[in-house]
Amino acid sequence: MNLLVLHGPNLNRLGQREPEIYGNWTLEEIDQSLKHLAVELGVTLDAFQSNHEGELIDRIQESEHVDAFLVNAAGLSHTSVSLRDALTGSGKPFVEVHCSNVAAREEFRQVSLLAPVAVGTVQGFGPESYRLGLRALAASLAAGQ
Amino acid sequence: MNLLVLHGPNLNRLGQREPEIYGNWTLEEIDQSLKHLAVELGVTLDAFQSNHEGELIDRIQESEHVDAFLVNAAGLSHTSVSLRDALTGSGKPFVEVHCSNVAAREEFRQVSLLAPVAVGTVQGFGPESYRLGLRALAASLAAGQ
Amino acid sequence: MNLLVLHGPNLNRLGQREPEIYGNWTLEEIDQSLKHLAVELGVTLDAFQSNHEGELIDRIQESEHVDAFLVNAAGLSHTSVSLRDALTGSGKPFVEVHCSNVAAREEFRQVSLLAPVAVGTVQGFGPESYRLGLRALAASLAAGQ
Amino acid sequence: MNLLVLHGPNLNRLGQREPEIYGNWTLEEIDQSLKHLAVELGVTLDAFQSNHEGELIDRIQESEHVDAFLVNAAGLSHTSVSLRDALTGSGKPFVEVHCSNVAAREEFRQVSLLAPVAVGTVQGFGPESYRLGLRALAASLAAGQ
Amino acid sequence: MNLLVLHGPNLNRLGQREPEIYGNWTLEEIDQSLKHLAVELGVTLDAFQSNHEGELIDRIQESEHVDAFLVNAAGLSHTSVSLRDALTGSGKPFVEVHCSNVAAREEFRQVSLLAPVAVGTVQGFGPESYRLGLRALAASLAAGQ
Amino acid sequence: MNLLVLHGPNLNRLGQREPEIYGNWTLEEIDQSLKHLAVELGVTLDAFQSNHEGELIDRIQESEHVDAFLVNAAGLSHTSVSLRDALTGSGKPFVEVHCSNVAAREEFRQVSLLAPVAVGTVQGFGPESYRLGLRALAASLAAGQ
Amino acid sequence: MNLLVLHGPNLNRLGQREPEIYGNWTLEEIDQSLKHLAVELGVTLDAFQSNHEGELIDRIQESEHVDAFLVNAAGLSHTSVSLRDALTGSGKPFVEVHCSNVAAREEFRQVSLLAPVAVGTVQGFGPESYRLGLRALAASLAAGQ
Amino acid sequence: MNLLVLHGPNLNRLGQREPEIYGNWTLEEIDQSLKHLAVELGVTLDAFQSNHEGELIDRIQESEHVDAFLVNAAGLSHTSVSLRDALTGSGKPFVEVHCSNVAAREEFRQVSLLAPVAVGTVQGFGPESYRLGLRALAASLAAGQ
Amino acid sequence: MNLLVLHGPNLNRLGQREPEIYGNWTLEEIDQSLKHLAVELGVTLDAFQSNHEGELIDRIQESEHVDAFLVNAAGLSHTSVSLRDALTGSGKPFVEVHCSNVAAREEFRQVSLLAPVAVGTVQGFGPESYRLGLRALAASLAAGQ
Amino acid sequence: MNLLVLHGPNLNRLGQREPEIYGNWTLEEIDQSLKHLAVELGVTLDAFQSNHEGELIDRIQESEHVDAFLVNAAGLSHTSVSLRDALTGSGKPFVEVHCSNVAAREEFRQVSLLAPVAVGTVQGFGPESYRLGLRALAASLAAGQ
Amino acid sequence: MNLLVLHGPNLNRLGQREPEIYGNWTLEEIDQSLKHLAVELGVTLDAFQSNHEGELIDRIQESEHVDAFLVNAAGLSHTSVSLRDALTGSGKPFVEVHCSNVAAREEFRQVSLLAPVAVGTVQGFGPESYRLGLRALAASLAAGQ
Amino acid sequence: MNLLVLHGPNLNRLGQREPEIYGNWTLEEIDQSLKHLAVELGVTLDAFQSNHEGELIDRIQESEHVDAFLVNAAGLSHTSVSLRDALTGSGKPFVEVHCSNVAAREEFRQVSLLAPVAVGTVQGFGPESYRLGLRALAASLAAGQ
Repeated sequence: MNLLVLHGPNLNRLGQREPEIYGNWTLEEIDQSLKHLAVELGVTLDAFQSNHEGELIDRIQESEHVDAFLVNAAGLSHTSVSLRDALTGSGKPFVEVHCSNVAAREEFRQVSLLAPVAVGTVQGFGPESYRLGLRALAASLAAGQ
Repeated sequence: MNLLVLHGPNLNRLGQREPEIYGNWTLEEIDQSLKHLAVELGVTLDAFQSNHEGELIDRIQESEHVDAFLVNAAGLSHTSVSLRDALTGSGKPFVEVHCSNVAAREEFRQVSLLAPVAVGTVQGFGPESYRLGLRALAASLAAGQ
Repeated sequence: MNLLVLHGPNLNRLGQREPEIYGNWTLEEIDQSLKHLAVELGVTLDAFQSNHEGELIDRIQESEHVDAFLVNAAGLSHTSVSLRDALTGSGKPFVEVHCSNVAAREEFRQVSLLAPVAVGTVQGFGPESYRLGLRALAASLAAGQ
Repeated sequence: MNLLVLHGPNLNRLGQREPEIYGNWTLEEIDQSLKHLAVELGVTLDAFQSNHEGELIDRIQESEHVDAFLVNAAGLSHTSVSLRDALTGSGKPFVEVHCSNVAAREEFRQVSLLAPVAVGTVQGFGPESYRLGLRALAASLAAGQ
Repeated sequence: MNLLVLHGPNLNRLGQREPEIYGNWTLEEIDQSLKHLAVELGVTLDAFQSNHEGELIDRIQESEHVDAFLVNAAGLSHTSVSLRDALTGSGKPFVEVHCSNVAAREEFRQVSLLAPVAVGTVQGFGPESYRLGLRALAASLAAGQ
Repeated sequence: MNLLVLHGPNLNRLGQREPEIYGNWTLEEIDQSLKHLAVELGVTLDAFQSNHEGELIDRIQESEHVDAFLVNAAGLSHTSVSLRDALTGSGKPFVEVHCSNVAAREEFRQVSLLAPVAVGTVQGFGPESYRLGLRALAASLAAGQ
Repeated sequence: MNLLVLHGPNLNRLGQREPEIYGNWTLEEIDQSLKHLAVELGVTLDAFQSNHEGELIDRIQESEHVDAFLVNAAGLSHTSVSLRDALTGSGKPFVEVHCSNVAAREEFRQVSLLAPVAVGTVQGFGPESYRLGLRALAASLAAGQ
Repeated sequence: MNLLVLHGPNLNRLGQREPEIYGNWTLEEIDQSLKHLAVELGVTLDAFQSNHEGELIDRIQESEHVDAFLVNAAGLSHTSVSLRDALTGSGKPFVEVHCSNVAAREEFRQVSLLAPVAVGTVQGFGPESYRLGLRALAASLAAGQ
Repeated sequence: MNLLVLHGPNLNRLGQREPEIYGNWTLEEIDQSLKHLAVELGVTLDAFQSNHEGELIDRIQESEHVDAFLVNAAGLSHTSVSLRDALTGSGKPFVEVHCSNVAAREEFRQVSLLAPVAVGTVQGFGPESYRLGLRALAASLAAGQ
Repeated sequence: MNLLVLHGPNLNRLGQREPEIYGNWTLEEIDQSLKHLAVELGVTLDAFQSNHEGELIDRIQESEHVDAFLVNAAGLSHTSVSLRDALTGSGKPFVEVHCSNVAAREEFRQVSLLAPVAVGTVQGFGPESYRLGLRALAASLAAGQ
Repeated sequence: MNLLVLHGPNLNRLGQREPEIYGNWTLEEIDQSLKHLAVELGVTLDAFQSNHEGELIDRIQESEHVDAFLVNAAGLSHTSVSLRDALTGSGKPFVEVHCSNVAAREEFRQVSLLAPVAVGTVQGFGPESYRLGLRALAASLAAGQ
Repeated sequence: MNLLVLHGPNLNRLGQREPEIYGNWTLEEIDQSLKHLAVELGVTLDAFQSNHEGELIDRIQESEHVDAFLVNAAGLSHTSVSLRDALTGSGKPFVEVHCSNVAAREEFRQVSLLAPVAVGTVQGFGPESYRLGLRALAASLAAGQ
């Protein structure tokens, strides 16, 4: 099983940007931690971050060898129909994660265009959201979901 | 660390009721699985189900020895101000879980009154949502969140 | 065919409470009349009233021998996702009835969470709504609907 | 007691048009069945169908000898202020019926302009809705409602 | 100057239908009164009533010799885009009148599709609304408006 | 019969301010014209203009000898609950007038707080709106409305 | 005069739960204080708290000897049609109280289903809201309101 | 293949009515042009215009020999549930056309009740919209869509 | 402690204006009663009424010696941002009162701009609302709230 | 070039009222600073403050010698149609300023009735907003805008 | 005449991605077909696809030699103000096309930011939409629209 | 103090694109003018334009040496959560500017996602908006805001 982690805009600044909201881990530390967990779960995992919606879509389209996605689309979660179309167009399952608890933040963050077409969502646990999302994705694939 | 799992209305019918939406596990199997995972995570765990909003509130109030809650409030998630008040009134953290991906269902299920005051939410992974939620809660408590 | 009539909150006060809106029959008289009509229609019928949402849900879950429900959920019609979930979770058809014409009353009574998952609705005819609803339910079951 | 059944646009196609939604009976069979039931209930009954809002209004205005209406306004239920005005202007009671369960269909069918000024509504039981509506109307007239 | 008074659905029932809302004058009396006032104002006036939206539109299209319209579209005021299109398509001014004070009635009567393309509106004065509207139309034509 | 014309804010600038919207007559000319028409209609008439909501309310309260009001509240029509309360509190009928066709202007001018408690409204005919409104008011008083 | 104080969900935790919002008094102290004030006002008073909507409704129905209610429905104020129906169904007046100023809190607390059918509301004064509400209720009964 | 072109209210005035919006072609010229194109595309084509919603519905119901419709419902596009029901009830595909670009006009023209049940829509190209719509319909039928 | 009672527009007409809504007491009687109660409560009290929003704001700004306000802003409660700003700008607490139960009246009276920045609100008890509000304010000041 | 600065309600309290929102400068200091800047920019400038909407409108109407306005309408910005009408009625350009960043405050402050008819808006810079607004107005006049 | 076809995000996957919604043609086949049709229509045509909003805008800005655009903005149609601004900023006409019938899909696809500034729209005919759109564009240019 | 001016999509076309809305200056002229003003204000200033949201975010993240931003996000102002997150994530103040008066344009331009987290906004003065915004930013930094 090959998984791809997609990190949306500004997530390359994790650990530096507003740590009281997003936590102290850098993106490198998160990716490292996810790769360790991937080994444990018996899957292979790659990661990609971009501040460009178009690059994220390009990457999804080029991911023929990928079986599923773990997606933190950050600000694009609430506005990008194109990213949603790329993910549903891939025909592959994905899990949505958010470090912060978006339900407790501004109203424009309350709606995710991705959530209705995701397998499920994990939000609010800081970097741990990613690790839980990876477990969820692995379990979901194992269950043939 | 003592944790209490709260199951809302109709969840005692898990495994029998609409398995294509909620999965095949019974509530007993879920609780059993959560208890095994609790041992692994080094926490103690109890579980309580009720179809009565009032009994859920009573139980939250009587939970002085409990450190945190894992809550699947089912249909009450979207309508019960009282349950929200009981949880915030307890002064203790809780994690919200849903078996189904409520973001992909009826509009009245899109808003949770609990989510903005929860640590975070896990939804869409069937019974696995509970297990991931338990991990999230344990990690959150360990991090002193 | 076994049918169960479910009466929601405050309906035990029928005949006493605001008769200009709800009519003069007591709940006992309605149940009596429904039982006579049931004999005529060749079905058996039981009835249950409660002011507690939880007790109504419990009763629905315990109704394994029941083939269909006749439901006047009163005030819960407009607010209870849990009752809706219990009814759809039972996998059995139900008909919704209201004594008053809720379409002509306060705005919060204009939306029923039950109506979209009911076979159909009868409202506005006082106690006669129950009798018409029973006929509708019997006809619907006879037609294998 | 003289009753008039009013069938709105497209109902002359009942039995042919989308039978999975509206049932298999033709309008003639429905009218026939209603006339038999009318005899049983001791009332006289006439029926009128038109695809023209104006003809329906004309007919209502010419119905001086009619005591009450049984109305399935079909698509006009949701948009015709004029039909509502004609019915309230007649000073006579009417019962609203729908073959399909409009509460479970498109959003624009959720609001009826007729319902708030009707005695009540019966919906969702196929052709049986008409028969139940006739019973409701007769009972309502008998009760001097 | 040739003027045409257009009366919408149900207005042929004026004087009979809900006089506490619409007043005691019949449509014939109103038309008679308007014709007298027309003489006084030095204009010629014809009148047309129909319960059919289509006939009203036909009449507007056939009115090449007419200089302006006095319109009480009744229930169609709030829903008929076609009537609005017919009036604007004629390239001629019109004044909108209502016998009742629609601002004090049901919410669906609060919006008129005709008002924004009318010269102006007179409402709330019973049959007198027509007479005032005729004066307004004559004055407006005299002023070359 | 004593009538009082109330002119709201900025109407003292009629004839100077945006004549393409409000017409060419000055307020003095309008008042003069209304007084002539009052003589013709057999009523006495006084007029008062203010840019101050409070002064308009004061004047309404001091109008014990006045039988009815003719009101162009201008911008206050859409925002002043206090003016509405003063008018309804006076226990006297009033007619609302607007020179411009407010239905064809900005959205915030579409709702009048006064209209639902007025006898009726005349709008869109320039200064002629006042004259028609005075006729309407006189007719309404004569009819004992 | 017999009065019944009804305390809704979570109010048994007053004094312990979020005192910065709800104040420092326990429910026992509030009830004690109300009973002293009742003696002073010459009325008798009983009190009842429950976390169960159904028990509150049961108690209202059993209160034949009660002349009026003093109600703090807490979270149920915003969601319970059934509680409203029970109160209006009793045919007895009631006063609504809230310790916190709900107008300054979350949006879902801004609407009370009880307020429109209450005599009046007192909110924002901590435990003093109850005492003021009791005075209001006594005055209202004395005035035969 | 037999096709029927349906022209809604006011379209008989094409070429005369507001040509800056709708273009200079008369309806006869449009129908003539469509018939030429039909020959070219190898289909037969008839056309029907009415200002009466009811006549349009009658014609749809009588069109047993017709394989598909080309529909410009004009003002009815935005309000007529009955026309929609007639079209879906026919069980035949249709293409929706508009001469003007309704997306750039009044807000009440932004929603079409027909669009969601049409094969597709062509709008904004004046009389050319009809010709493009005919091509679209022919292509769609050829593709067995 | 020095308190100032602020009465908004039209309240000088209390006792005369719509007594079935606002009660029979005149404003003088209310002020008199409040002054007696003030003595009892050990505070000094002055009162001011105006129909002018600006005068109410002026008075608030000039109230340097005042410790708190008792405010019935009447119609301004629902529309005056300026009055709200004056009150919050004073840095002093205030209690909001209404004689009528605004929650049971027109929709535009359901929202108060003052309530969210008040200590609390008392509404629905006629003139007694003022007396209860005074007690509330005194208690609130005594508690150092 | 003669400019008039208009300060709305409560701005006479600048420097004293909530300085954390509005800054430390008094209105006198602002006016002084603006007059210095006016000299620098080669324009003459007068200033006027009132808590009375009517006085602000009066002043605008009396400003025949004024070429443009600099307006901080404070709370009236969001509610006063009359003030907007006075400004547009003057036929002169104006610039809107706010000391606070209203976009970051309560929802009712998010909409300005003045902004759509202003040349432009400057907000959020404390007293500096006035100075920037004056520069903007001068530049706009110089450009013949 | 030089035309440029702009394909938005994910359209490079046409033919592979969800063919039941978007049809079986690849983008190359569509472009090929459009070029053949362009020859027939006597225009020259180029095509450009990108998943990047910015690249689409860049391309529009660089298209000085282009006379008009044929645009399928895919998911950007519903969210990109910038793309709209680029198109209107070019001063050139464009036609909007969609393969699927967006009116029958998710609510967020119902609004197009491009439609109000397009010449017109063609949607719902699969790849044929492009061909029809090209015809529409050519006809529109020929007519000097 | 180092400042960075960020120009969003299409602003590289200033002076060429719709000058009646955006003015006659090219972006180069604006930047030149800003650099002159920067010297005068004693700050250093760089400028960056892109049609790509992602490049704007990249640039913000790479601006470690920058003390504050001057931002005209053009069409992205109304839709880009990611740009907002990049700006707040930088921990540095920014001022928002618009050449046109967006409050007077289309409804979708009325809400800015950036405004609530900006120091303030300047809009409506053409290129002068930038110069005023730069003054505002410099003053704000000088004041240690």
